Amino acid sequence: MNMDNHPSSTLAAFAANLRYEDIPEPVLRRAEDLYLDWIGSALAGKGARAVESIAKFARAMGGTAGGEAEVLISRERTSPYFAAMVNGAASHFAEQDDVHNGSVFHPAAVVFPPVLAMAQAIGASGRELLTAAVAGYEVGIRVGEFLGRSHYTVFHTTGTAGTVASAAAVGRLLGLDASQMLHAFGSAGTQAAGLWEFLRDAADSKQLHTAKAASDGLLAAWLAKEGMTGAQRILEGKQGMAAGMSRDADPSKLVDRLGSRWALAETSFKFHASCRHTHPAADALLAVMRDNKLVADDIAQVVTRVHQGAIDVLGAVTVPATVHQAKFSMGTVLGLIAVFGRAGLAEFDESFLDPRVAAVRDKVSMLIDHEVDSAYPARWIGKVTVTTTDGRTFDGRVDEPKGDPGNTLSRPELEDKAMRLGLYRDGATEAEMRQIFDTVWSLTGCTRVGALLP
Amino acid sequence: MNMDNHPSSTLAAFAANLRYEDIPEPVLRRAEDLYLDWIGSALAGKGARAVESIAKFARAMGGTAGGEAEVLISRERTSPYFAAMVNGAASHFAEQDDVHNGSVFHPAAVVFPPVLAMAQAIGASGRELLTAAVAGYEVGIRVGEFLGRSHYTVFHTTGTAGTVASAAAVGRLLGLDASQMLHAFGSAGTQAAGLWEFLRDAADSKQLHTAKAASDGLLAAWLAKEGMTGAQRILEGKQGMAAGMSRDADPSKLVDRLGSRWALAETSFKFHASCRHTHPAADALLAVMRDNKLVADDIAQVVTRVHQGAIDVLGAVTVPATVHQAKFSMGTVLGLIAVFGRAGLAEFDESFLDPRVAAVRDKVSMLIDHEVDSAYPARWIGKVTVTTTDGRTFDGRVDEPKGDPGNTLSRPELEDKAMRLGLYRDGATEAEMRQIFDTVWSLTGCTRVGALLP
Repeated sequence: MNMDNHPSSTLAAFAANLRYEDIPEPVLRRAEDLYLDWIGSALAGKGARAVESIAKFARAMGGTAGGEAEVLISRERTSPYFAAMVNGAASHFAEQDDVHNGSVFHPAAVVFPPVLAMAQAIGASGRELLTAAVAGYEVGIRVGEFLGRSHYTVFHTTGTAGTVASAAAVGRLLGLDASQMLHAFGSAGTQAAGLWEFLRDAADSKQLHTAKAASDGLLAAWLAKEGMTGAQRILEGKQGMAAGMSRDADPSKLVDRLGSRWALAETSFKFHASCRHTHPAADALLAVMRDNKLVADDIAQVVTRVHQGAIDVLGAVTVPATVHQAKFSMGTVLGLIAVFGRAGLAEFDESFLDPRVAAVRDKVSMLIDHEVDSAYPARWIGKVTVTTTDGRTFDGRVDEPKGDPGNTLSRPELEDKAMRLGLYRDGATEAEMRQIFDTVWSLTGCTRVGALLP
Repeated sequence: MNMDNHPSSTLAAFAANLRYEDIPEPVLRRAEDLYLDWIGSALAGKGARAVESIAKFARAMGGTAGGEAEVLISRERTSPYFAAMVNGAASHFAEQDDVHNGSVFHPAAVVFPPVLAMAQAIGASGRELLTAAVAGYEVGIRVGEFLGRSHYTVFHTTGTAGTVASAAAVGRLLGLDASQMLHAFGSAGTQAAGLWEFLRDAADSKQLHTAKAASDGLLAAWLAKEGMTGAQRILEGKQGMAAGMSRDADPSKLVDRLGSRWALAETSFKFHASCRHTHPAADALLAVMRDNKLVADDIAQVVTRVHQGAIDVLGAVTVPATVHQAKFSMGTVLGLIAVFGRAGLAEFDESFLDPRVAAVRDKVSMLIDHEVDSAYPARWIGKVTVTTTDGRTFDGRVDEPKGDPGNTLSRPELEDKAMRLGLYRDGATEAEMRQIFDTVWSLTGCTRVGALLP
């Protein structure tokens, strides 16, 4: 086997050789945080039509065969392939799963489903699960950065880079050597797919993309273990992923500070259940209201100062007709924040047209701000100016939105978020969620990963 | 549902509404020919490492659940998803399956595996099987033509267009209406993948591509029946397949003479088990030897007159080191033809270095020919000049290689080829193959498609 030194092989060797002991403590703790955050998101996909259709497919095509891997939304046991597929479908539905800003990639949705499924199937330890997840994050984020902005204009990076991320994670769990890992990358990359065209019709493909990235990557790693060979340079080769699907790929991104830069720790948690472009202003408004002890009725006007991208994506503040539209309405998001102090899934579902929320919504406007726009996308600054009914004016500002690495969620905040997601569609009971918290926070002592739910 | 008239929706409506009665008799007979030809190819994949690895995966991940669908190489019964996956993996291994020249697409390998699997699972009739296969061919070939030459430079069209072909075929079998069929196209197109990069390393991805196209397309159609929605313009939309994976896509190809041009009937059978670029010269040599009653020992020199592409792909006539290389050796192919009268899988395996074959091989040369080169790729003309040991010279010529639509295989020739493929790796016995011939030739009278093998 020719293992010439090139970016694909360097990255594959890193993933294959990554040891638990090599990973800094804060990165391991963050990996546990991300794992809990993912469990909540996966449970919140319960009942969604597209997710349940994929679960039904898995059941019809062999899922009844039993197995050790757990489908979180149904508590069925099945093979790791189908568990990865269904949990992958469920993970991104509530859009509360994590995001890596630089690669515009949602790692948890495509890394944890195959990792948990294969860990349960082979009886891996908690430390092995964590190590595999870190391998998946480090590989997937770098592949996303490598594929670049031109890729993201047409392709859903979470689907494409996600397939390689899943293969890396499962490959680590299966103990692939560097050569086998490179074959797994080859088989994963040649399956990588996912097009944004579905957005135009608000179609269900996002669930299909995460389901397939998770299960296709697992397939690639499993086959590599069996001796299946793949392209040695699937990422940067002349007929590889970048050649076919990018115009600005940068191979140096694939190996950027491997082992010293931990991309996993750069991943952001989503705090509000709304479009990310609303988060900086929402946090700034929260800060103003908290610092000045304001309530919703005090508000006469809110001017948000934003980047151009926010105006492009969110558009004019109008009356939303659906929950989905409400999540892209800056006015509605700030209205929920003002009335409830949060803009979570339940607040959107129950109150996006609440008269108190609508009253604030209609007082919100957006203005482009030079500082905010210049800093974007490296930094997502939030600025608001609030005028009260009694004529006072307050300026609020956050330099990093809640959930970003410099303003991350505490474990109590993560538990609170996961609890809300777990209860949201009756994915789990409060007691079950508390049991899951214990399981996740004690993962490093776990000798054999078992089921999360009874 | 907005069913605006655009190429994707027109093509989807054609596939959904195609009736057995609408298909001309010669097209139906050719579909039966292609079906038998595929069965032989699928059986010949038995024992191949990459194919058996995928079969093992299917078994491990739920294939033991049983079901009505048949894995031809192992005679196991499983779900249609896994049967499509494994039979798809097996179909292209021997490289004896059919090819459509204009789209550079191998339809049988991605259409018949999901069609047979789903037909067995739902108990469809023989006529329904044929109608579904025709829908798959007509859609897949047009999608391949639409994606164009630029697509083929990086992407394996059989994997990409093949996913949509599989969805169209299975969708027809499941009775999707035009709207559901368009959703199935959306879910198929957004999964479409397959990169040529593996060729550089002679890796196993070709088997993965046909396996995944067959099973992913089936998944897309099944989900559409369940209500899963997909992009309405996955083929030609601004963030669809062509936008991401082609620079010369022509949407008019998608709807080219739907219902009057039958692209299935343009599909070529492979007659020799060698690189297609050797076929015209092999047929011309066969004609010269037959017409002039020559044997191998009579040959002093063979000059083949070829197109530039043949020289580029085949290179100099040297001594091949492997069976695979032998299939790209013009001299070896002509040597087998001269000695055995055929260049089939068994001849390559057993005799590619036979001294009698090598003796002819070393007398073969290639020269570029203006007429042949100008006609390519629309026509593959074969020309040879044979000089005998007693000083005579014969010119041979074929205008269309054996297996192309204008020089197709008779049913006895198809049976002979299928028999050799079936026996090649003990995929079936002679008696079983004869039973299969009866089954295929009487397909239109079959009320419920059952197993092909006991």
